[in-house]
Amino acid sequence: MRRKKNKKRSKVGMAPGTPIFTGTQKMSQIGFSVIRYNEDSFEVLEPQTTGEVIRFMDSAEKITWVNIDGLHDEKTVEELCMALGMHKLSVEDILSVSQRPKIEEYNTYIHAVIRNINFDETDNSIDYEQISFILKGNLLVSFQEKTGNVLESVKTRICENKGSVRKKGADYLLYALFDCVIDQYFSVLDKFGDKLEDLETQLLDNPNKNTLNQLHNLRRETLGLRRSIYPVREMIGDFEKMEEQLVSNNIKVFIRDLYDHSLQVIETIEIFRDTTSSLLDLYINSVSNRTNEIMKVLTILTSIFIPLTFLTGLYGMN
Amino acid sequence: MRRKKNKKRSKVGMAPGTPIFTGTQKMSQIGFSVIRYNEDSFEVLEPQTTGEVIRFMDSAEKITWVNIDGLHDEKTVEELCMALGMHKLSVEDILSVSQRPKIEEYNTYIHAVIRNINFDETDNSIDYEQISFILKGNLLVSFQEKTGNVLESVKTRICENKGSVRKKGADYLLYALFDCVIDQYFSVLDKFGDKLEDLETQLLDNPNKNTLNQLHNLRRETLGLRRSIYPVREMIGDFEKMEEQLVSNNIKVFIRDLYDHSLQVIETIEIFRDTTSSLLDLYINSVSNRTNEIMKVLTILTSIFIPLTFLTGLYGMN
Amino acid sequence: MRRKKNKKRSKVGMAPGTPIFTGTQKMSQIGFSVIRYNEDSFEVLEPQTTGEVIRFMDSAEKITWVNIDGLHDEKTVEELCMALGMHKLSVEDILSVSQRPKIEEYNTYIHAVIRNINFDETDNSIDYEQISFILKGNLLVSFQEKTGNVLESVKTRICENKGSVRKKGADYLLYALFDCVIDQYFSVLDKFGDKLEDLETQLLDNPNKNTLNQLHNLRRETLGLRRSIYPVREMIGDFEKMEEQLVSNNIKVFIRDLYDHSLQVIETIEIFRDTTSSLLDLYINSVSNRTNEIMKVLTILTSIFIPLTFLTGLYGMN
Amino acid sequence: MRRKKNKKRSKVGMAPGTPIFTGTQKMSQIGFSVIRYNEDSFEVLEPQTTGEVIRFMDSAEKITWVNIDGLHDEKTVEELCMALGMHKLSVEDILSVSQRPKIEEYNTYIHAVIRNINFDETDNSIDYEQISFILKGNLLVSFQEKTGNVLESVKTRICENKGSVRKKGADYLLYALFDCVIDQYFSVLDKFGDKLEDLETQLLDNPNKNTLNQLHNLRRETLGLRRSIYPVREMIGDFEKMEEQLVSNNIKVFIRDLYDHSLQVIETIEIFRDTTSSLLDLYINSVSNRTNEIMKVLTILTSIFIPLTFLTGLYGMN
Amino acid sequence: MRRKKNKKRSKVGMAPGTPIFTGTQKMSQIGFSVIRYNEDSFEVLEPQTTGEVIRFMDSAEKITWVNIDGLHDEKTVEELCMALGMHKLSVEDILSVSQRPKIEEYNTYIHAVIRNINFDETDNSIDYEQISFILKGNLLVSFQEKTGNVLESVKTRICENKGSVRKKGADYLLYALFDCVIDQYFSVLDKFGDKLEDLETQLLDNPNKNTLNQLHNLRRETLGLRRSIYPVREMIGDFEKMEEQLVSNNIKVFIRDLYDHSLQVIETIEIFRDTTSSLLDLYINSVSNRTNEIMKVLTILTSIFIPLTFLTGLYGMN
Repeated sequence: MRRKKNKKRSKVGMAPGTPIFTGTQKMSQIGFSVIRYNEDSFEVLEPQTTGEVIRFMDSAEKITWVNIDGLHDEKTVEELCMALGMHKLSVEDILSVSQRPKIEEYNTYIHAVIRNINFDETDNSIDYEQISFILKGNLLVSFQEKTGNVLESVKTRICENKGSVRKKGADYLLYALFDCVIDQYFSVLDKFGDKLEDLETQLLDNPNKNTLNQLHNLRRETLGLRRSIYPVREMIGDFEKMEEQLVSNNIKVFIRDLYDHSLQVIETIEIFRDTTSSLLDLYINSVSNRTNEIMKVLTILTSIFIPLTFLTGLYGMN
Repeated sequence: MRRKKNKKRSKVGMAPGTPIFTGTQKMSQIGFSVIRYNEDSFEVLEPQTTGEVIRFMDSAEKITWVNIDGLHDEKTVEELCMALGMHKLSVEDILSVSQRPKIEEYNTYIHAVIRNINFDETDNSIDYEQISFILKGNLLVSFQEKTGNVLESVKTRICENKGSVRKKGADYLLYALFDCVIDQYFSVLDKFGDKLEDLETQLLDNPNKNTLNQLHNLRRETLGLRRSIYPVREMIGDFEKMEEQLVSNNIKVFIRDLYDHSLQVIETIEIFRDTTSSLLDLYINSVSNRTNEIMKVLTILTSIFIPLTFLTGLYGMN
Repeated sequence: MRRKKNKKRSKVGMAPGTPIFTGTQKMSQIGFSVIRYNEDSFEVLEPQTTGEVIRFMDSAEKITWVNIDGLHDEKTVEELCMALGMHKLSVEDILSVSQRPKIEEYNTYIHAVIRNINFDETDNSIDYEQISFILKGNLLVSFQEKTGNVLESVKTRICENKGSVRKKGADYLLYALFDCVIDQYFSVLDKFGDKLEDLETQLLDNPNKNTLNQLHNLRRETLGLRRSIYPVREMIGDFEKMEEQLVSNNIKVFIRDLYDHSLQVIETIEIFRDTTSSLLDLYINSVSNRTNEIMKVLTILTSIFIPLTFLTGLYGMN
Repeated sequence: MRRKKNKKRSKVGMAPGTPIFTGTQKMSQIGFSVIRYNEDSFEVLEPQTTGEVIRFMDSAEKITWVNIDGLHDEKTVEELCMALGMHKLSVEDILSVSQRPKIEEYNTYIHAVIRNINFDETDNSIDYEQISFILKGNLLVSFQEKTGNVLESVKTRICENKGSVRKKGADYLLYALFDCVIDQYFSVLDKFGDKLEDLETQLLDNPNKNTLNQLHNLRRETLGLRRSIYPVREMIGDFEKMEEQLVSNNIKVFIRDLYDHSLQVIETIEIFRDTTSSLLDLYINSVSNRTNEIMKVLTILTSIFIPLTFLTGLYGMN
Repeated sequence: MRRKKNKKRSKVGMAPGTPIFTGTQKMSQIGFSVIRYNEDSFEVLEPQTTGEVIRFMDSAEKITWVNIDGLHDEKTVEELCMALGMHKLSVEDILSVSQRPKIEEYNTYIHAVIRNINFDETDNSIDYEQISFILKGNLLVSFQEKTGNVLESVKTRICENKGSVRKKGADYLLYALFDCVIDQYFSVLDKFGDKLEDLETQLLDNPNKNTLNQLHNLRRETLGLRRSIYPVREMIGDFEKMEEQLVSNNIKVFIRDLYDHSLQVIETIEIFRDTTSSLLDLYINSVSNRTNEIMKVLTILTSIFIPLTFLTGLYGMN
């Protein structure tokens, strides 16, 4: 939570479009990877300098996917963005790592932002990472906050020519990357759901103060999750409604499928929200119940021994 | 709940459209049944192999309903789907058994998904089963997770020529099957409502910890029910709005009726939701009340005997 | 609640449109009454057989209102409906007595369903009765579950030529009957509101367990009321929007007025809903308060006598 | 609350449009006042009989505002309305004093209803009064339940030629009167807010049972306020959207301003609603806290003296 | 809260459009500052009299930004507004300092209102200040309740020619000022969030009555925040939709970005709202828990010593 707050603090008084990285540095150095492919072949390139990356971006005959890991080096990111002819607000959005998920058309490119999530099971916290995509003709550029393996599977599919990614355009590649991130949501929600179930078992068996605090933590994380994931539905909807020349009609059916997935994710979060409330009610009722039972024991003890003690007192009078 | 969670876990990193069964195997073998009919005659066929099923699918002069029980054998399902010329996303949706209920047009067919529910009264849990339908001209194919008798009554009506099912097309058959599933909802909601009423009686008479846990269980099940049944209304609405060549106008009045039923189901679930909240409030108030009464007894006892004991003590002083 | 649940239970597996009465028989025999009128004259007829009723339906020169009391005799109802050339789904809806209030156009007639309510003050329960209307040209047929006097006042107004009912068409008659039912809502809500007020007084003066249970009952009834009355607004709105040839424009202003009434009813129910929540909060706070006060007494007593008793013990030591 | 309930009770079974006063008589006699003005001059008239009032209504060259105080004399009100050629439903609405605020076009006139509110600080109750307006060309007729001074300020402005009321038409006069009523809302909400603040101070300092009851009263009044004021926004919106010949375009900017005021009123009520909930939470937490503290005292006392008493008992054994 | 309430109190009975300052005087004298610029040059002017300010407003060849600090001197404000040819309702809105944020087109100018917020960390209260903007061709006039430095950064950017403010029109200037205010929101929300986090830590460690009161205060402030900030989203949306001649298309992309920021602000407030509820639940559960634990200690003590004391009494009998 504190990390997110750093976001705008430093930006009061700055001109709109000032490119400033608002996250915490998560890795030592920016890393690049480029993959070019068409239906028949592919090549994986590992450029070392910004210049090389920019040169690789220029080949139009194949589909090119450039991935940048790490955003803390504002200069490099800005240089790459300038080479792509991007609007300065786009550049700012890539570096400001608490954007709402969205997809926007600019004159020459599409700019999309989504958040990848990871669940840290040791302290029940959810970790967020912003991923930005620039789709410009045959070129797709992705910006990740840190080296992540969430998009790795698509790379593998390209190399091994699995699925239809090699047979379709860069718009399909963008779809496939979104699909990866949303599949990751399901996986995180699964773990989150398991935690909730464990907590429920604890609550029914032996609730204590720690259970309450854990429940409170999960509830707070649910709030953050909602905020990050709700706008995804709208974003996928906007993606689906884009015009033919930007997103070809034959991948619309895939996006519609993705839209359904985003609805499922949202419904799951709503269920988590209702479940945490429900568990909290269960907790408070359990505690009331136990207090009530203790009171009964106390009252029974008192009603037996207090009169008896009075009697012994009576016979003990001088 | 845990079953549903298995869903996407195994799919992270897979290409969209990969056909993988995400449920638990509920039966040993896939079963097929085929029924062909027109207004004058009908025939029930029991194909043993996938090849036979595919051959039976081809007869266009009569209405053909192919039912497949069991989805765990991904190969067989995929083979059938390929024979129907289906999109690979459709195939994936049939096998991923936690789809949102929906109805979608593809180029050559309509794909519908709905969830059948059963109420297990022993542990107050609700069991879900996904049923997918493919409507392609005169052919209707239904995919069920397990051998169920929910659709059996339509088969009987076809054989006994009851109602108007024999006089109408495959679109009416699809409607009739939806109607079956939604009638089943009413039946499950009745049982659920009875449980709630029993719990209410318990609460008013003699609430205990078990009552609270049961109430909590029912509340949790309500959340699941909402999720499975809410999208049905939208789905029926989409079905009604389909074009003349897909769904003939003279069955639109039936679908409108079904839409009303789906509204009724949703309103009933909303009432259950409000009722569980209301019962929980009743519970907590009852417990507070009882604690209050116990405290009164304790205080009265104390206020009588403590002064008396003091007095006996006074007279017992040396 | 239990009555409503009987509804669909018996219908699982039946063909759509099967005419089955789903209520409880509320009277021994079906009763008929027919009234024919125009601006100049009227006649009240009391047919004894279904055949007579059907004959009376045929006179087109006057406005004819046929009222049927009692629905348990499915045969008779079906026969009448067939004579009117009704769709079998309409017939089913008349007999299935837990329809959502609605108004629907069929090819040759309008079908409306509304629910009349009565408040039983002895046990604070609300009793529901379904009333269906068929408007077909100059003919209006009403189906009531039991002999009721809710529509009686319109009959009187026709006979005594009060208001403008005799000067207008059968569509105005339908409006007048709706108006009767909605006036009845106000009357029931008045009584309900009085009960809530009594309960509030009880709560402020001397709350006990019975107050809590009554409050819970009223809250539950509010849920049922909402469900029965909310759709009425939409229904009146649909009625207002019907085309000129079905509902003449000069009665639209009356329907608009009725629409306002339906809004008022709904707002009143919302207030009841909020009031019951508010009273429940008051209750729980009162109980906490009293517990707190009892605790104070106990603590004061204890803090006076326990030290004193200790002292007497001290001086009583050997 | 009870007053409002009398409303429809007496109307069950009556023909729509029957003119019956549903309020309580708030004054002994109906009072009339007429003011005629144009940009150059004005005259204040005090007619004594209904006939005189009707005669004054007829002058078309000036703007005429007729105000009627008191509605209990149904005959007089009906006579005036008939002279204006009003629809009988309008007449009924003027006399039924619990209408929803609304504005409606009839063939020859506009009919508006709004509720004026007063806050009685002695018992924290809010008093409602219905005001109806008929705008017909240059003539504006207002019907008030009782002699009120809420509209007085507009009269003064006309006489003293303050603001632009004399320079504009009867539609501006209607706007000015609405503005008066809504200004009154702000004034009442101010007093209401002060009460809430006092209650908050009480709660933080020394909460007792009376605080709880007062809080409950304010909460109940908030429910009534919402119901009376919410529809005003929609009504002002309808007023703004009326056609040029009914409401001239150059006063639309004033109505838009009034619309903003109505939004502000509604937001304030929402804040009151949330504040009462918040205070109730504070109350229950405070009580729990105090109970907890009393328990601590009791436990400490007990844990000191009970062992000591046991020891003295031990040494007091024979 | 009390300050806001003074607002309309004094306005009951006044003509619409009467210019009256409804705030509290926050500074001794009205201050003026004027800055004129184009892409090549800028000049900062410090007029001392109203006449001078008006004269500076007239130069059309450059972009002119006039800032007025302080509103309590109604005469001066009115004089300036008259010189701008403003509608009297606009003037009233500038002086009535509790307007809803909005942007409105008048014949010759655009009128915008927004609220700046400051967080006072000593008593956790939020301070509001209304800022009004008049955009008329090349001229932008801003009215602030008090000398504030929130808009100062834009002035600096103009002088130092940072960002693109010097290269664009007065509409961009208005955007830049809005951007400043909304950046300030983020900064305040950050501090507010920190307070909530501190409170959460307190709650988990050692909750007491003061924690509860602070939590209540923050919750109340959240209500006020929502009211002030929610309408900003709609306002920015209206700004974006304005026609080409008022707001040039090439700054629409900036406004869209601002719209996203306003969504982010609103989502943050919603999270605060949910968090305060969640913390309140945590509080009440903690207190229940502690009461339960104290009860346990008491009961254990009692169950050990009461029987023992009885025994000593028994042996102490004579």
